[in-house]
Amino acid sequence: MSLDEILTRIDSQMPDATERLMELLRIPSISTDPAFKSQCDHAADWLVADLQSIGATVSKRPTPGHPMVLGHIDGDGPHVLFYGHYDVQPVDPVDLWHRDPFDPQVEETESGPVIRGRGSSDDKGQLMTFVEACRAWKAVKGSLPCKITFFFEGEEESGSPSLIPFMRENAEELRADIALICDTGLFESRTPAIVTMLRGLLGEEVTITGPDKDLHSGMYGGAAMNPIRVLGGIISGLHDDTGRITVPGFYDGVPELSADIAAQWRGLHFDHQAFLGDVGLSVPAGEQDRTPLEMIWSRPTCEVNGISGGYTGDGFKTVLPSQASAKISFRLVGQQDPHAIRENFRAYVRSHLPEDCEVSFTGHGASPASTMVTTHPAFEAARSALSDEWPDAAAFVGCGGSIPIAGYFKQILDLDALLIGFGKDDDQIHSPNEKYDVESFHKGIRSWARVLDAMTRD
Amino acid sequence: MSLDEILTRIDSQMPDATERLMELLRIPSISTDPAFKSQCDHAADWLVADLQSIGATVSKRPTPGHPMVLGHIDGDGPHVLFYGHYDVQPVDPVDLWHRDPFDPQVEETESGPVIRGRGSSDDKGQLMTFVEACRAWKAVKGSLPCKITFFFEGEEESGSPSLIPFMRENAEELRADIALICDTGLFESRTPAIVTMLRGLLGEEVTITGPDKDLHSGMYGGAAMNPIRVLGGIISGLHDDTGRITVPGFYDGVPELSADIAAQWRGLHFDHQAFLGDVGLSVPAGEQDRTPLEMIWSRPTCEVNGISGGYTGDGFKTVLPSQASAKISFRLVGQQDPHAIRENFRAYVRSHLPEDCEVSFTGHGASPASTMVTTHPAFEAARSALSDEWPDAAAFVGCGGSIPIAGYFKQILDLDALLIGFGKDDDQIHSPNEKYDVESFHKGIRSWARVLDAMTRD
Repeated sequence: MSLDEILTRIDSQMPDATERLMELLRIPSISTDPAFKSQCDHAADWLVADLQSIGATVSKRPTPGHPMVLGHIDGDGPHVLFYGHYDVQPVDPVDLWHRDPFDPQVEETESGPVIRGRGSSDDKGQLMTFVEACRAWKAVKGSLPCKITFFFEGEEESGSPSLIPFMRENAEELRADIALICDTGLFESRTPAIVTMLRGLLGEEVTITGPDKDLHSGMYGGAAMNPIRVLGGIISGLHDDTGRITVPGFYDGVPELSADIAAQWRGLHFDHQAFLGDVGLSVPAGEQDRTPLEMIWSRPTCEVNGISGGYTGDGFKTVLPSQASAKISFRLVGQQDPHAIRENFRAYVRSHLPEDCEVSFTGHGASPASTMVTTHPAFEAARSALSDEWPDAAAFVGCGGSIPIAGYFKQILDLDALLIGFGKDDDQIHSPNEKYDVESFHKGIRSWARVLDAMTRD
Repeated sequence: MSLDEILTRIDSQMPDATERLMELLRIPSISTDPAFKSQCDHAADWLVADLQSIGATVSKRPTPGHPMVLGHIDGDGPHVLFYGHYDVQPVDPVDLWHRDPFDPQVEETESGPVIRGRGSSDDKGQLMTFVEACRAWKAVKGSLPCKITFFFEGEEESGSPSLIPFMRENAEELRADIALICDTGLFESRTPAIVTMLRGLLGEEVTITGPDKDLHSGMYGGAAMNPIRVLGGIISGLHDDTGRITVPGFYDGVPELSADIAAQWRGLHFDHQAFLGDVGLSVPAGEQDRTPLEMIWSRPTCEVNGISGGYTGDGFKTVLPSQASAKISFRLVGQQDPHAIRENFRAYVRSHLPEDCEVSFTGHGASPASTMVTTHPAFEAARSALSDEWPDAAAFVGCGGSIPIAGYFKQILDLDALLIGFGKDDDQIHSPNEKYDVESFHKGIRSWARVLDAMTRD
């Protein structure tokens, strides 16, 4: 049976596949920091060359930000579009890394070998699982079992400003039967999972201005309003005592979980205590009448991702600062409207502002939540294929993170998306010492070969 | 009359005096930042050499931090000790400076010429007014009219950690009849002022730890407690709706203003609207039943001088941070006990901490308020001398800033202190574009010559 031949080929080619991933990981493609612009470009070039090596017709497409990589391999059968992103998160605080984030290495650990480095799990390692599955298939069979479009983005970690315009302008070329996305994880690091609910994301940067210049806190302290005090009050007021978010209208469009989905999730036997215990906590911070699994999969949130104001260096400086800023993001669910929430949030902030202080806002992305239509036959084919590869049967799950691309595929291209990924909970994505298990990489490649086989079998 | 000769000498030597001050201003003696340690040392050496040039016996005295400069000139009559500090504040945000903070220059402005540069007003320019007065006196008369001790510190802007031990160890050498301190300003930039009330200062750095590592706000947002949210609540709760500080016991030892002092202050006709209007504000931020002059002179405060947590660079990062920190300071009045307030503040923070979050504290200085005994004859002599030099008669005033040295002189050396300074409200001390008016420098030097004359006249 030829699937076995392909899986055997994958196993034998693991050293080469790992070396290719290392090459890509060495490129510091941090999209949010303008200092790394040329490195993002370099990562796109690397992917163009790699896709060409497996026979794709590929090009790097300019955008006002970082380029897209778009490639095609012709074939019979259904047409799948595979999406991944080649950009990575910043590496700070860099002194908490045990090694150079962009000098990746395979490290032996108590739970097996891991590939350590920024982007190993999010998303370069995951992206390459699909590319390597195609490479093995082509090597064994001479051609792929279906028509494939590869679509790689370089701005996923910085709000994807160029994505929607690019998809609109290239809708014809991006047309396919279904989208495959590899940017998620195994459920509890063990159970293969297909994500059918994704939270949306809305970002707001808030800057409060009190006095029009930095002041000496001795000369003005007590009499001049301190913008950090104002910002503290605004942040403090965003949640009530029960953990609910207080922005007016915030819960409009938040659905209750169906009995069916609720039962499915209870069946996963999620260890809530271990989930919080793993990060040194024990008390869930969200709405008091919800479980932590609901808090991260089906409930909206408000988090402060960063705050700054006044003197923050070594020692002490008795300044009464002119400004204080916070980066605040909201995870959205169901039918919550990001644009309405942005307006309501801004009105909330303005209503908490002392008479003579000022506020300015900078919006960072606004994507609604996505809920997949799991009746498409590819969902069942993929579930079955993943169950064959892994010890546990695959499950349909939710996801706390925001992968807005899934919503855009639906809205702009009318494409359903299969979200399958192999990350583990301890991959430390977005944190120091990010890693990707060699098992995730290896079985991930094998999983995609099985999924392609299941989706294209007659 | 020989005072006139001395004043004439001061006038003729202004170009040389200005050039000497420029030399001192070019040394970036930022005491709070360890990177500038050798520059602090360099400033001390410069002062040693300059005092030697006017005939003092001087030495640089090592401390665990930055050195002290201690010099003596023998003479008849009373023994005065003059104190100043040669260290300066950090210069950030440096991009708001119109020129290099350590490349000082005399600039023409609408309100007359100014010396622009970090430390020009606080405190190098003020310190040199006294040194230049002594230099002129010596040049004209061959000797000084009294015994003088010069005592210059290099840690005033970073909490003076070495000051008390040094004063205790060198109490005999520091003995004098009265202390003179030049680190304050003209009242409303116009009226010569002797400060008789000084607020104390207590600094606390608070770090809240939630999760034990930085998390992805998608994976943990909603379920894991965010330390910025906790810190926001703590900051927000430090003041009640009427502007009072809520730390238990905080107002213990805060006196009501005497009818006499209150009447004196009303007589100053302080323009509260202009005071706030000058910095772009209109609503006093302190206790609602107090005037802004009371808020800054006779009422205690709590200010957040800096806050940081999470991602604060360009763009957006959806991190749920492990830690958030704030630098918080309290200005103290009357008999408030800084040590009791530190303990009560820490207890307040702990009582607002969620069950599984942690807090750590770093203390930065703890000095009580000072109230001068104005019956010492030097107070009346100085008031009269200053009234002769300036268009307005001199006044006894309060001061919002903390000059803990005045309290230490009293506690450790049993010395009363005369606080006389020539800074103006728009000097931008501790802020970008600090300046010292050439008029402040010139009339400041003349003022000290007159004060020395008045104090030593038979």
